[in-house]
This record gives sequence, structure tokens and C-alpha cells, in this order.
Amino acid sequence: MRDGFGLSRREAFFVVKGIVIMDRTIEWDDGVVRMIDQRTLPHEYQIAEFTDHTGVARAIREMYIRGAPAIGAAAGFGLALAAQNSDATTRDELLSDLNEASDILREARPTAVNLFWALDRILKRASKESLRAPDEIRPAVLDEAQQIADEDVEINRCIGKNGAALIPAGATVLHHCNTGSLATVDYGTALGVIRAVHEQGKGIRVLVDETRPRLQGAKLTTWELKRLGIPQTLIADNAAGHFLHSGEVDAVIVGADRVARNGDVANKIGTYKLAVLAKENDVPFYVAAPTSTIDMSVAAGADIPIEERDADEVTRIGSEHIAPDGVEVANPAFDITPQCYVTAIITEKGVVYAPFEEDFAEIFQA
Amino acid sequence: MRDGFGLSRREAFFVVKGIVIMDRTIEWDDGVVRMIDQRTLPHEYQIAEFTDHTGVARAIREMYIRGAPAIGAAAGFGLALAAQNSDATTRDELLSDLNEASDILREARPTAVNLFWALDRILKRASKESLRAPDEIRPAVLDEAQQIADEDVEINRCIGKNGAALIPAGATVLHHCNTGSLATVDYGTALGVIRAVHEQGKGIRVLVDETRPRLQGAKLTTWELKRLGIPQTLIADNAAGHFLHSGEVDAVIVGADRVARNGDVANKIGTYKLAVLAKENDVPFYVAAPTSTIDMSVAAGADIPIEERDADEVTRIGSEHIAPDGVEVANPAFDITPQCYVTAIITEKGVVYAPFEEDFAEIFQA
Repeated sequence: MRDGFGLSRREAFFVVKGIVIMDRTIEWDDGVVRMIDQRTLPHEYQIAEFTDHTGVARAIREMYIRGAPAIGAAAGFGLALAAQNSDATTRDELLSDLNEASDILREARPTAVNLFWALDRILKRASKESLRAPDEIRPAVLDEAQQIADEDVEINRCIGKNGAALIPAGATVLHHCNTGSLATVDYGTALGVIRAVHEQGKGIRVLVDETRPRLQGAKLTTWELKRLGIPQTLIADNAAGHFLHSGEVDAVIVGADRVARNGDVANKIGTYKLAVLAKENDVPFYVAAPTSTIDMSVAAGADIPIEERDADEVTRIGSEHIAPDGVEVANPAFDITPQCYVTAIITEKGVVYAPFEEDFAEIFQA
Repeated sequence: MRDGFGLSRREAFFVVKGIVIMDRTIEWDDGVVRMIDQRTLPHEYQIAEFTDHTGVARAIREMYIRGAPAIGAAAGFGLALAAQNSDATTRDELLSDLNEASDILREARPTAVNLFWALDRILKRASKESLRAPDEIRPAVLDEAQQIADEDVEINRCIGKNGAALIPAGATVLHHCNTGSLATVDYGTALGVIRAVHEQGKGIRVLVDETRPRLQGAKLTTWELKRLGIPQTLIADNAAGHFLHSGEVDAVIVGADRVARNGDVANKIGTYKLAVLAKENDVPFYVAAPTSTIDMSVAAGADIPIEERDADEVTRIGSEHIAPDGVEVANPAFDITPQCYVTAIITEKGVVYAPFEEDFAEIFQA
């Protein structure tokens, strides 16, 4: 049976308002996937709980949770829910259920590669020949999902440390979208670098792009930086060029949703313009991303699918309708930054410079 | 006596909701200045009436009316109200009252030069030695204000015609902010060019930048284009780079708030990034502006004051608060586009190419 979202009615969903402050953006707790509902921040801190993979797919699609590493972890736990809920009595039946669940999760969002990477990694583990019975596979699936989540925190701390070495003391950095704890399991990628600089006591100030249309900068990054006590100034996206030209910005640092083999970067819409403006004004442009974001199967950015999202995201802000009814809208959620504008890509395994393809190949061979 | 706005209580202000559709954005009607209240569009069409220059100053500051040519006309009519309301019985008394009113209007907004240009032009006419008595000066002030308004419509039509010749048939153009009838007395500058292309039957489609923080594109430009029947697609400002890079845009066309002698352009925040992105992608970048926007007293863009507006414009959209309370905000209302990024400046006297200073000098000598 399907509801209006094309999802099974088995999906269970609860909101526990303001009761628990989570250690991580997403957690597995005794058969339940719990995540911060990012749609109501910064004003309301709500926890959403899911007991079914279709609910997790909806959470990804509707952006309860977003950020490439976070949706990778969410997809992993979604698969763990599918394994837990499956009535399969044989190995083949369970693997078939997991593949079906994986297909549903895979369709949630098309651009960030971490989603597919996490699903593939778990399916590979689940289908190991050594696992014969469903009751051997189920804990393996959960274990792999949990490993992905745990590793993400560790990876982000490495990215932070590697990136912090690139940022001079007392720097002002420009940041786009949200790449912090909320975009990952914990700590953050680009925001992790900022956080590491701050933790090292070097002093850092962040110019926060509001990041239309969904305002992840205004709503989420400001909220995180405030909690971390890192000085920040919120700006309209339109003002970024002005500040890059004024000489006030020492570096631009962003995350990534997918990096092609040649170093082209798919990231939140508006990233490309920052990269061009940074180069034009001799400001370094850094991309911070785990190696799970690098898609060696894709030769260049042009081959990365760009998600087109609802017109509503542009024409409505909360309850405010900001455009005439029925106006035509184009709303690409991501853009491609050609590698020629990227100063360096900061991964957990080190900082990669152009030509990226060679270094990527080394990383993946190692 | 001063009210909360620091304005005289003599200011009279009425809203006539949805009764009159005005021919022009701003009109003088029998001792009253009437303007479309642009703050409530596209959802409510309201007319605001002012009988005092302090009310007009407030209307400019609070953006009932905006757009360089429109605020020039508004300042002119504000001075006509001051002349009408003055109790002066001698020439010197009236000129003193006009200078005082001019100072109040002059302070309303700092960047667009048309405001100062209109005030200076009217004060010059008022202080002609041939005008001896207050009753000779009062009609001269109104006549000059009315001339400025009438000329603006004519000038915009010339800009439209001159600019249309640059736009190929069937073009897609990218437009920032609002430069239409609402930003002028009627017809528009950059939007006037788009309108002229449309009227010539050449076919044109507009990518409309929403133009954060005040959303003049989403709220005003969409409303005007819809009334004119010109095909449009609304985008978040962040998506402009994506579409410029995709090859979908044949030209960028914007207005100006002030053009320096060397061709540097002060215009709505976000203009600079479009100019850089246009150049990077070999797309022509056109500025459409009347010669009254060219300030020959300013050598370069760096000398143009940039208005900093309230944080509230960034953190609040209608009734929606989009950022944590108390977050620090930078909100420059304009930026400077260095002349090296400007393909051409379209004026009523012709299209000017680099080096701009020489051609400007010729225009102002002619």
C-alpha cells in the first residue's frame, strides 16, 4: 500500500520535540534510526525517528537530513532497518529484500555519490559468501552501517587537521551551504576545517553565505558556528563577490556532493560562482571532502546528474510567497565547478592538488 | 515635532488599496505625490500618497519607491511639495526652505546619483535670477520636477531602442534586480531594452535573478514581465553562474545606480559577480542607464559610497526569521563592477564602449 509520497504505510515517524540533544546528526538506537530534523532549525530542535527504510528515503528526499556524508550514513542505517524488518528466512530472500530497499534509498537524491557508495559497500558486505543465514547477514549489515557512521567522524577530524594547515592564523574564510556536524555524522568537512583551525587557537572568522534557496547557511551554519563560539558574519549570497573583491577574504572553503575523476566538483548551487570569483581575486578555493565523495567512475563534471528540485523552494520561504503565483522557475540544486578553479581538495588522506586524477588514482590504489 | 521616524508630523500618508492603477510609478496630481508602494507587490497593489517632502524622503529610504531614475523623480516631486508647502514670502526665504528640504531628501539614500542630480537640477532652476518672487519660483520648481519625470520616460524609450539593437532575436537574457517601469517613471532601463526587443517581435526570454536580500527580481520583475507577456524563468541568485556556464544565456543586462567617470558601475549587490561570470563565459555584459546616472565628478568606483542596510533585510523574509536571533550580518546594498567587465553602457544618447571616459566626455560636451 502506498501513500501520497509513494512510500509504504509501514513507515513509522515520530517527533520528540526538544527532549533529547543528540551527540550526532544521525544515530542507530536499538532498532530505531534517530536524526535531527534539519528543516526546523535554527528555531526548533526536533528529533525525528524512523523504523523503516522508506521513511529514511523520505527523510533524505525531503531533507530532514542533508549533506553528502550524512545522507551516506542515513542510507546505511536505512538498509539496516530493512534487514531488521525483513521476514526473509533464506539468504537469497534477505539479499533480495536488501536490494529492493537499496533501490528505494538510491532514488532519494541523485547527485551526492556518498549515498550510492554507502549502499554498495553494505550490499557487498551482506552478500559475502561466508554469511549463509539471514541471522548472520542482519548483524553484518548493521555493523557495516555503524562502521560507516563511526568512520565518518574520524575521517572528518582528519580532513579538519589536513585542511587547518592551509589556513593562516586570523583568517577570514567564506563558507557556502552547510558542511558541519549536520551535514555529516559529526564534526563536518569544510566546517570541520574551520573548527580545527578554531580548536588550534589560530583564530578564524567565517563569512556565511545564506545559501538560497534552502538557506542552509543562514539556518544551519550560523546555528552550528554559534554553538561552537566561532565568530561569523551572515551575508546574502549576492554579497560574496563584493567581499572577495574587497580583499577581506583569505580563503573560500566548501564541501562537495561528488567529485569527478578529473577533479570537477559537484556541490550546492552557487559554488561555481564562488570558485570563479575566488580565482579572479587570487583567493584560494578549497574543497573539503572525504574520499567517499570522489567518484572514479565519472570522468568529468558534465557526467554528474544535477538534481532539479521543486519550484516551491524558490517561490516560498516558510509561509511567505515571494513571487507571483504560477511563475516559471528553474531550481537546480547543484552546480559543477570545473577543476581549473579548484586550488586543492582536502581529503582524510591528504591534500590533493591538480592534476587531481593522478593523485586520486594513488589514493584509491593505496 | 518629530515622530519615531525622525520625520515631521506634517507628513500626510494615505493608502488607497487597489482602487487606481497608475500609468506611471510616480505622479504629481494636484498638489499630491502619488506612487505605487513597491513593498507589497506582487501580491497587493497599493498606492501611497504624500503631501510633504519628509514623507517622500521616508518613502525613498524605506523603499516604497526604489530604482535610481525613480528616486530621482521622487526627489524632484518632493522638492515641489516643499515649494508648495513653504510659507516663505521672499525669494531668499523660499530658496532657504528648498535647500533645507533638499538636504533632507539628499540623505534618504547615498548610492544612486540620480537623487542628487535631480535635486541639483531643480535648485539651479529655482535660483535663477530672473525668478524674483516666491510665486514665480513655486511653479518653476514643479515644472522642472515634471520635466524630469516626463523626460525619464522618453529617455528610457531611447535606451530601449539603442539596447535592442544589441540583442539577437530569440535571445535568453539574464536580468538582475528590477529595472522596469517600477524602477523608473515608466518603461524601464535594462527591462526597457528587454521590452523594446519584445515589442519589435524579435522574441526574448528572461532569466530573472530573485535578487536577495530584498527580492526585487522575484517580487517586482516577475510581476512586470507577467503583465507584459514576456516569457521568464525565475532563479535563485546562486543559479546564475550555472546558467551562464551552461551556454543558455546570450547576454546579461542590468541597470545602474551610479556610473563613475571611468565606467565603473555601482549597482545592486550581486551585479559584480554576474559581470565576472559573464566575462569568464564569453557572454556580453550590458549596463543600461540614463546619462543622469553617470557621475563625472567621481573618478572611479572606489569613490562611490556603498549603502549598508539593516541586518533585518537578510535575517527576515516577511514574517519568517531565517537565522538565529542576534547573528551578525553584513548587508551592503550595492557593489562596484570594474569597467573591465562591462561590454557596453547603453544610454539614451547611444551605446558607449571602453574606454568609457572619452565617450562620456563627448556626451557631456554635446
